[in-house]
Amino acid sequence: MYRPIGIIHSPYREAAKTPIQPKYAPGIRAQIEIFPEYIEGLKDLNGFSHIYLIYHFHEASSPKLRVVPYLDEVERGIFSTRAPNRPNPIGISIVAVKAIEGNKIEVEGCDILDGTPLLDIKPYVERFDHIPDTNKGWHEHISEETAKRKGSRKENNP
Amino acid sequence: MYRPIGIIHSPYREAAKTPIQPKYAPGIRAQIEIFPEYIEGLKDLNGFSHIYLIYHFHEASSPKLRVVPYLDEVERGIFSTRAPNRPNPIGISIVAVKAIEGNKIEVEGCDILDGTPLLDIKPYVERFDHIPDTNKGWHEHISEETAKRKGSRKENNP
Repeated sequence: MYRPIGIIHSPYREAAKTPIQPKYAPGIRAQIEIFPEYIEGLKDLNGFSHIYLIYHFHEASSPKLRVVPYLDEVERGIFSTRAPNRPNPIGISIVAVKAIEGNKIEVEGCDILDGTPLLDIKPYVERFDHIPDTNKGWHEHISEETAKRKGSRKENNP
Repeated sequence: MYRPIGIIHSPYREAAKTPIQPKYAPGIRAQIEIFPEYIEGLKDLNGFSHIYLIYHFHEASSPKLRVVPYLDEVERGIFSTRAPNRPNPIGISIVAVKAIEGNKIEVEGCDILDGTPLLDIKPYVERFDHIPDTNKGWHEHISEETAKRKGSRKENNP
């Protein structure tokens, strides 16, 4: 049984208008509020330029094993996508740390809905986490231009 | 409330002898057993060379907010480390997919204890997940040679 360690405050209040990845939310700021009992665990985090936020997709609809990903037009297995309506609705985003003060972390590149419960933070460590020369499955046929245009969800914003 | 979607079968039966990251477990194979009711969600996963495994650190000791990371000699805030004894003991590993057959995924580069409950699988997508030019916090002063030597945990093996 996991319990939130904090809450993510972002400008996004509607799932359909929330960018699908931090990459497609450049410049978007969010504030991570860490509950006071966990502040001590933030020590040394300020040396890292990027962190993983691990959170609960609190507004995910009921799980589906096949979904049409936002970037694609074909039904795919849920585990080959980042869609929120997963058997265990756990989300992961890599965001840039701009400032840490007390129990607040200011981050940039936010693709997370306002009010999302935060479960964990881990440092992004390039030597662990950068895998060069990967095969990208169904992403291979999605151009970067399409990913950027659709992924920003700007079309859904007025 | 999350429920396991499968079980990770690996050669590692003792935490102290388990490599700290997939990178330091080159060539090590593991079998991921997916429970039958989730098999349909594996569709399209075989096109990706790498996946995130998201799992429950089932043998983690009680949470600590400061720990001495395995690679370091100084106490650090838990959220600046990948240590398992976190407030929510969720682990993340990026592993290479070697084969998917039925409800079995054969992966390579395994740093996960045998019997670990699997919570989620996500595709590793380089355009989302590779962050170049990062600051690496306390990792900056750990040489790659030291990381490799300590991270493999070979010293703990006979």
